[in-house]
Amino acid sequence: MRAVAVRRGETTPKVIDVPRPTPESGEALVRTLRVGIDGTDHEVVGGTHGGFPDGAEHQILGHEAVGIVENPNGTRFDAGDLVVPTVRRPTEDGNGYFERDEPDMAPDGAYVERGIVGAHGYMADYFTSYERYLVGVPDDFATHGFLTEPVSNSEKAFEHAYASRSAFEWSPESALVLGNGPLGLLTLSMLVGRDDFDRCYCLGRRDRPNPTIEIIERLGATYVDSRETPLPDVPDAHESIDFIYEATGHAPHAFETVHALAPNGVGALLGIPGDESFEVEGGRIHREMVLENKALLGSVNSNVEQYKAARETLSAFPDWFIDELITGVYDPEEVERAFETGDDVIKTVVEFDTV
Amino acid sequence: MRAVAVRRGETTPKVIDVPRPTPESGEALVRTLRVGIDGTDHEVVGGTHGGFPDGAEHQILGHEAVGIVENPNGTRFDAGDLVVPTVRRPTEDGNGYFERDEPDMAPDGAYVERGIVGAHGYMADYFTSYERYLVGVPDDFATHGFLTEPVSNSEKAFEHAYASRSAFEWSPESALVLGNGPLGLLTLSMLVGRDDFDRCYCLGRRDRPNPTIEIIERLGATYVDSRETPLPDVPDAHESIDFIYEATGHAPHAFETVHALAPNGVGALLGIPGDESFEVEGGRIHREMVLENKALLGSVNSNVEQYKAARETLSAFPDWFIDELITGVYDPEEVERAFETGDDVIKTVVEFDTV
Repeated sequence: MRAVAVRRGETTPKVIDVPRPTPESGEALVRTLRVGIDGTDHEVVGGTHGGFPDGAEHQILGHEAVGIVENPNGTRFDAGDLVVPTVRRPTEDGNGYFERDEPDMAPDGAYVERGIVGAHGYMADYFTSYERYLVGVPDDFATHGFLTEPVSNSEKAFEHAYASRSAFEWSPESALVLGNGPLGLLTLSMLVGRDDFDRCYCLGRRDRPNPTIEIIERLGATYVDSRETPLPDVPDAHESIDFIYEATGHAPHAFETVHALAPNGVGALLGIPGDESFEVEGGRIHREMVLENKALLGSVNSNVEQYKAARETLSAFPDWFIDELITGVYDPEEVERAFETGDDVIKTVVEFDTV
Repeated sequence: MRAVAVRRGETTPKVIDVPRPTPESGEALVRTLRVGIDGTDHEVVGGTHGGFPDGAEHQILGHEAVGIVENPNGTRFDAGDLVVPTVRRPTEDGNGYFERDEPDMAPDGAYVERGIVGAHGYMADYFTSYERYLVGVPDDFATHGFLTEPVSNSEKAFEHAYASRSAFEWSPESALVLGNGPLGLLTLSMLVGRDDFDRCYCLGRRDRPNPTIEIIERLGATYVDSRETPLPDVPDAHESIDFIYEATGHAPHAFETVHALAPNGVGALLGIPGDESFEVEGGRIHREMVLENKALLGSVNSNVEQYKAARETLSAFPDWFIDELITGVYDPEEVERAFETGDDVIKTVVEFDTV
């Protein structure tokens, strides 16, 4: 079967031919429909994040997938069911994080991530998965169900952020997403769809006209150009923000977030920056956190319950939003084009099959 | 009556003579027993934190108090009841934070703090307080009930820290207190008294022999000398820590805490540093927060429920701990000595009266 992989020593994705996987007991065989590409895939291809499966000479890419059960193989699924796989798998049996459905909280070494680190991904004609790592999705998810994975990451971040503010009566009104890439826009759409926030903002650095800015404004949110209004200036230019969601991987944002937060606010960090040192107004950051009860938390990955929440969230997104978000659908053979970036590219996807 | 105050333009506390306050409707009159001194009092005296009441030429100090109800004045208390006052008062009626008993979450401008900013404190023969800001304490609290206030601040910080980890199954085993001043030692004693932590550490920079190190070790905790083992080295020298409580006001600690935390750990910041800029390994801090689900939160002040929790906590402290912690009891006329610091000084208190 076809698989999109990166070979050891190379930094471009290629179509290779690999044997179709055979499901083990407890695993279903899934025929892949679509696999989305995100920043992590670019990092895996470039070799700056993740790692090959042990001993493998290639890594099959892809962790945002939707497919159809081809062979249920005794699992709870029926042939023809639409499913989305989760990303993490345990490195050994008896891993408590996985047993209690908290793979997202497992520490380094206790997991592999399909398509990212230590395990092959879903960018192939078929994949297998244990049924507990498959989430059933509605039939109309064939074209965009792969978005369940990124949305589930934000569901988790929201859950943790709200938990961090649960010891008092928190009534947030404003939200700011840092980054207008696909994860930023998905998260902005989630925030706009919640009743909590009267005012939503999205920070980026693109020139108009740009499709991401059009989406931001059509969602009813305010675009903040960070070249004109850097993050620390947001309170003066707009307002102090109750909830900030960072999806840029730009390390200074983690620190500047503190000042941009309103009293009692929380910042959720999801970007993964490389090593970088810089000066911060450390006394002020520390003092503002204390005197204004501010919180910062990092969040990675997601669990099955958060996938289920994402399934509901995604069902409520307007059709136009998903149409505008997916800017390119490519055959596996066109994968290099699917990895091209540009001002008009938001979310691209590799399509192996249709329903 | 006698009051210990700092006069405008001066930086030493003095005994002055002021009229005995008359309780308004809803207020009780309280005869002061003891008022503790902490780092904030030193900052108020030095002029680096807080501020005088509007138009006042002096500020009466003190926010950690215990006293006896002299005149209940129609409140729920009886004459002779032992009480501890809270610190914050609203700047205007109809303040929702105070109405729902969350004064600790009120933003700057919505509150004054007795003895700290905008209101006179409790370091006087008598004080008055609305009954909702008085917490009844047991009769045996006459000598150490003033510790209810600092302990309540840590109760709040614990509550918020645990809330921030409530979206998953958090099973902390290790705790580290940064700072071996009175708040650090009180907090260490609280942590040791909880079932959650198998191993507790306290970081300071004093030479042996020192009474704080003796207390740390008698509590069964491990003293970490930050001159030999700086905070970032704690994971290698000891272990990564599940819960870190910062009570140093040393701004680099806020950032170094991230690396010292174990995966899924949380750091509570309570110190109040001045302005200071420095270089941080920002990329690494940001990345570790995300990939290891770490949280940092600031915490200030406390509410009545947290005072009540502190009352229970304080009742469970061993007598020897409180005896060793209180290193000096001074008459109001000796207040300058009560403000002296030194390696053998832990917690000093001004005593206005005894039961």
